[in-house]
This record gives sequence, C-alpha cells and structure tokens, in this order.
Amino acid sequence: MPKGQPEVVPNDGLTTRQRRNRPILAVHTGPMKGKSTAAFGMALRAWNQGWSIGVFQFVKSAKWRVGEEAAFRALGESGQGGPVEWHKMGEGWSWSRKQGSEEDHAENAREGWAEIKRRLADERHDFYVLDEFTYPLHWGWLDVDDVVTTLRERPGRQHVVITGRNAPAALLDAADLVAEMTKVKHPMDAGQKGQRGIEW
Amino acid sequence: MPKGQPEVVPNDGLTTRQRRNRPILAVHTGPMKGKSTAAFGMALRAWNQGWSIGVFQFVKSAKWRVGEEAAFRALGESGQGGPVEWHKMGEGWSWSRKQGSEEDHAENAREGWAEIKRRLADERHDFYVLDEFTYPLHWGWLDVDDVVTTLRERPGRQHVVITGRNAPAALLDAADLVAEMTKVKHPMDAGQKGQRGIEW
Repeated sequence: MPKGQPEVVPNDGLTTRQRRNRPILAVHTGPMKGKSTAAFGMALRAWNQGWSIGVFQFVKSAKWRVGEEAAFRALGESGQGGPVEWHKMGEGWSWSRKQGSEEDHAENAREGWAEIKRRLADERHDFYVLDEFTYPLHWGWLDVDDVVTTLRERPGRQHVVITGRNAPAALLDAADLVAEMTKVKHPMDAGQKGQRGIEW
Repeated sequence: MPKGQPEVVPNDGLTTRQRRNRPILAVHTGPMKGKSTAAFGMALRAWNQGWSIGVFQFVKSAKWRVGEEAAFRALGESGQGGPVEWHKMGEGWSWSRKQGSEEDHAENAREGWAEIKRRLADERHDFYVLDEFTYPLHWGWLDVDDVVTTLRERPGRQHVVITGRNAPAALLDAADLVAEMTKVKHPMDAGQKGQRGIEW
C-alpha cells in the first residue's frame, strides 16, 4: 500500500483536497473470507468519524456476521461515533412492511437494492456496506448497468464498500479501490472446521 | 472460502470438536492495506464471544488505527462482549514503567514481545492482534525461532493474528491461516491521497 505522495497527479481540475475527499467505491472480492471482515474493519474508522453507517447484508441466512452485527449495534448505542443501521435480507428487510417471501431471494434482493437507491438519492448514510452484494449481480437478479450507473452518479460524499465473489467487470471498472483476498493457507485444508469467535 | 465439510479429515487422533476448537495462528500479509483491517474485523467476532482481547501495535507512530482503537475502547467499555486491552509501541508500552526510548525501536519491539511471551504463558488473553509484528521480525530485531517456537507451544486456547508485510517463511509455516491481501486497484493510482475515515 502506497503512503504519502501519490505517484501520479491527474489533470482533473480538482484541488488536492477535493481529490482527497472524493467518495470511495470499494469492492472486496476474491476467494478468501477476509472480504467482509475487512469491510467491517473499514466501517470502524467510519464510525469513529461520526459518520452514519448503513449495512445491508445480501445473505440468505441471518446466521453469519453475528459478531460484527452485535459489535456495531453496541457501537451505535455507545453514545460515541456515528449512528449504525444494520439490515439483513435473510429475515426480510426490516424497513419493509411486507416481509418478502423466504423463498424469493431474487425479489428480496431487488427490494434491498431499491431501498439502497432511495437512500443514495437522499444521501442518507456516509458509509454503506453492501455485504455479499455481488451475488445478486452475478446471478442476474439485479441489472448491473442500473447498479453501476447509480453508484457512479450518487450525489454528495457517500462511501460504498461492496463485498463478494464474482464481482462483475463493469463494477470493478467503476470502483476506485479493488482488493482481492487470496487464500494462501487455511485451517480447513488441515481438516479443521470453522469455529465460533473465529469464523462467525 | 470453503464452508461446511472439510475435504480432508486428518488422522490426528482428535475428535471433530477438539480439532474445531484448536486455537488459530493467522498471518495477514501482502502489499495491500486490508491486513490489519481484516484482523480488527476478526476481533469484532472474538469480542462478541466475550473473549479477552489484547491488541499490540508494533508501529512507530500512534497516528494510525485511531478509528479502530476508539471503536474497541468503546466496545471494551460497553458492558457487553469481552474486555479489550490496546497497547501501542509508539508511545512506549503502557504496561511498562520505564518508557522506552523514542529512538530505540528495536528495544521497544523486544520489550513488547517479552510482554506478549509472559501473557501467552499466563493465558492472559483469548485473542491477540499483533499488528505490524512482521516488521521487527523482518528487520532482525526479534529472534524468529524464539517467536515461532513460543507461538507453536503456547498453552491453552489462545488465538493469535499477526499482520504486516514480509512475514518470515518460518512464521508462515507455523501459521494455520495465511491470507494475502492483493491490490487490484487503489485510489492512490489515480492520484487520490488517503482520507480521514477511510484510511485512518
């Protein structure tokens, strides 16, 4: 990771401060599990800035990220830092009156994205985590062009971090930061199953 | 990341539960900044288990990770989850009466490691983050054999996550989990400097 001076100063008509403060679209992809973990680590810094954080988990089950969710709820209630909202597709989105069908994941994903679009237009949060959001894109449940255009044209200073495998090329093109998590060695290779406190 | 059943069940005389609950030694290495970020994301899950967390930052400056530190201090004081201790080399280790010389980073690193050794022997924490700990190893300030042997032989169920570039091969050999963070694209490439809330 470079620190300090960037190697290239683009001719984009922006001051250093304007360029520095451009909102980031980050994508964490690759085969290793650190993708979401690193996104929630980033969210700790955003929280400490007093930023409004919105987490949207595009996962089928509410089983995962229980540790992160509990921690961010505690942070949101701590009276320090920024407010935190945490929404899970797996339970039916909490903002929605009609609970989406358990079975219809595609419809649930579309409802989730529609809400995120509204919030981006309203500049509702400063920092969004769209966890496992690449899957509804990869599976064709959401229109990639719509997602990319919406993200590119989002108003104000809203940072967005998207996690998941198989991120579409158009999303990677639009991203300012793409990190790939690569497995070098994992306990599962030695026959060890995931364990509480480590994997969830 | 594999989920569910491991592909190999080793003939190690352990039950699945014993094998599952073996303490993890993880190393996050590679050129990208997510290494520490992902380690602190893991620590969120450990905190939620009520585990005692010890963070030891082997960095020269107290400038970095302010967001993570503030968040974990708030979590430690929340009355939920586990207790959190956060120690920084850059200010002179807080447990030490004699403040190490500002200049003598090697001596400070050795003091830090000596304390971690004592804590591992005492089973003081359940989850250790040794942030940027590869640097004193890489620079020869600490004896790699001593570190690897101590980690391999640590008693009880103490998880250890080590971050930083240039992890020595012997440490990677000893690790159960090695994740490499790779940069695919970074805003710095487009001339954008690091910004508050995102980079620190």
